[in-house]
Amino acid sequence: MRNPDPPAPQPPGGFVAERSFLFPVRIYYEDTDFSGVVYHANYLKFMERGRSEFLRAAGVRQRALRAGEEPLVWVVRRMEIDFLRPARVDEALLVRTRVLGLGGARITLGQAVERAAEVLVKARVEVCVVTLPGRPRRVPDAVRESLGAYL
Amino acid sequence: MRNPDPPAPQPPGGFVAERSFLFPVRIYYEDTDFSGVVYHANYLKFMERGRSEFLRAAGVRQRALRAGEEPLVWVVRRMEIDFLRPARVDEALLVRTRVLGLGGARITLGQAVERAAEVLVKARVEVCVVTLPGRPRRVPDAVRESLGAYL
Amino acid sequence: MRNPDPPAPQPPGGFVAERSFLFPVRIYYEDTDFSGVVYHANYLKFMERGRSEFLRAAGVRQRALRAGEEPLVWVVRRMEIDFLRPARVDEALLVRTRVLGLGGARITLGQAVERAAEVLVKARVEVCVVTLPGRPRRVPDAVRESLGAYL
Amino acid sequence: MRNPDPPAPQPPGGFVAERSFLFPVRIYYEDTDFSGVVYHANYLKFMERGRSEFLRAAGVRQRALRAGEEPLVWVVRRMEIDFLRPARVDEALLVRTRVLGLGGARITLGQAVERAAEVLVKARVEVCVVTLPGRPRRVPDAVRESLGAYL
Repeated sequence: MRNPDPPAPQPPGGFVAERSFLFPVRIYYEDTDFSGVVYHANYLKFMERGRSEFLRAAGVRQRALRAGEEPLVWVVRRMEIDFLRPARVDEALLVRTRVLGLGGARITLGQAVERAAEVLVKARVEVCVVTLPGRPRRVPDAVRESLGAYL
Repeated sequence: MRNPDPPAPQPPGGFVAERSFLFPVRIYYEDTDFSGVVYHANYLKFMERGRSEFLRAAGVRQRALRAGEEPLVWVVRRMEIDFLRPARVDEALLVRTRVLGLGGARITLGQAVERAAEVLVKARVEVCVVTLPGRPRRVPDAVRESLGAYL
Repeated sequence: MRNPDPPAPQPPGGFVAERSFLFPVRIYYEDTDFSGVVYHANYLKFMERGRSEFLRAAGVRQRALRAGEEPLVWVVRRMEIDFLRPARVDEALLVRTRVLGLGGARITLGQAVERAAEVLVKARVEVCVVTLPGRPRRVPDAVRESLGAYL
Repeated sequence: MRNPDPPAPQPPGGFVAERSFLFPVRIYYEDTDFSGVVYHANYLKFMERGRSEFLRAAGVRQRALRAGEEPLVWVVRRMEIDFLRPARVDEALLVRTRVLGLGGARITLGQAVERAAEVLVKARVEVCVVTLPGRPRRVPDAVRESLGAYL
């Protein structure tokens, strides 16, 4: 019930470098599997966190989109992913996100999960905006303008 | 609290149809996200279950590979995934797995997640065998022979 | 790629033995962590699958509850969990669910995750029904009647 | 392959306040389920991240324990968890960890997941140290000394 600690620590919000957005991720037990390394599907979670923070940095919030008169959510339409090198528990990684294309209905991102100078995973990700029943909608202009700065 | 019930139910083991392997998956709370549908990365888990059961049906066990003199594990090297239609809680889906290519170092699979006659997600998946420190190894001959029947 | 195979395999639906409900679970890569065994939080997923199938067997569907005039969802209010023995990849486990108490607002379940005659995890779980904004509601009478048979 | 950005952002490391350790967590798509709130088992992941960072701050690393002559890992033996209020996507939460007891074989922690002044989830968690085959070991003295400061 207490929480009087004045400057409460915040989750990390990411970082812009050149035209890419960097977001730090720490590897925990939950991310690994019995083979000793990060379970492949969990890199998709890291990349989704990177996209969420990228959008947040660009002023777009998941809940704001959902709270509009026609609630919208992001969906991933297509991914091409290369799993190049493994990551292990305790490591600090970076998710790098860049905008490769900004269509009316589809945004194409280039994402990578990196450990220092090494790329562990790289991906090309196509995302769209849909209504809750799943109907595609144009990406809102405000979102496209914000992301245009990263093209 | 013990378990004296004679014919204990078994988890499903899958099913061969023509040259593909079918594995049933049920959607639970854990698989969905707040947008109301299955979280995209969780389809990769379903496809991994399908691959594990496919290998089990072909007589290959994860722990046997790992218990050899040079322990081996499967890794995914590359995936191309199209997320075509959403799935929702309570639905019963099928994971379909086919062998597209059987190289010495790399196996290429075609996988789909289906709901009745609809394909929800389809993927091309390249998997390899590596040592625990991550060094690539040839796919064991016994594995390749077993999978050859599905080519 | 379609699905014309006549008797498509179904996901398992569980099994009633005496007054408990048994549901089989297979351990996959996704369930384990780098320590070699199942990650502790994942047993809660197995128990939730067991509860979902228990409710389904009792004629209660998550989506039906949610589709009512006042949409309802299940929430877990409290758990006491003992993690007694580890499980490993490839193993076939059983989730055993019993009804310990049926209050108007709260259902108490006893759950266990078992491997043959061994109990790996046991838990006491209190679940409630709430509206989407989180307001508690009485457990619908139809649900309580169905579950009463397991008391 | 690039990563020449000088001061790369780090994942958060947490924060000591009075005798408790605070660790920030952000809620993403992956953490929620179709009911619109965080899936109950995922709070256990947040608490495990909090414990990992608590140990890291106390100078204990998972991989160091595992790399000793007799590799050791942490296991959770028992949890009592009250799920009091729901959390939603985009929210910033805090995981609070305190040491309640420091036995030779068992450490008891009090953990809470908080949103500003509200406690969403609180738990009593008993953790042990075991060998990879699962045999219990005394908690290393260095670990107990480090944690003693939080008693």
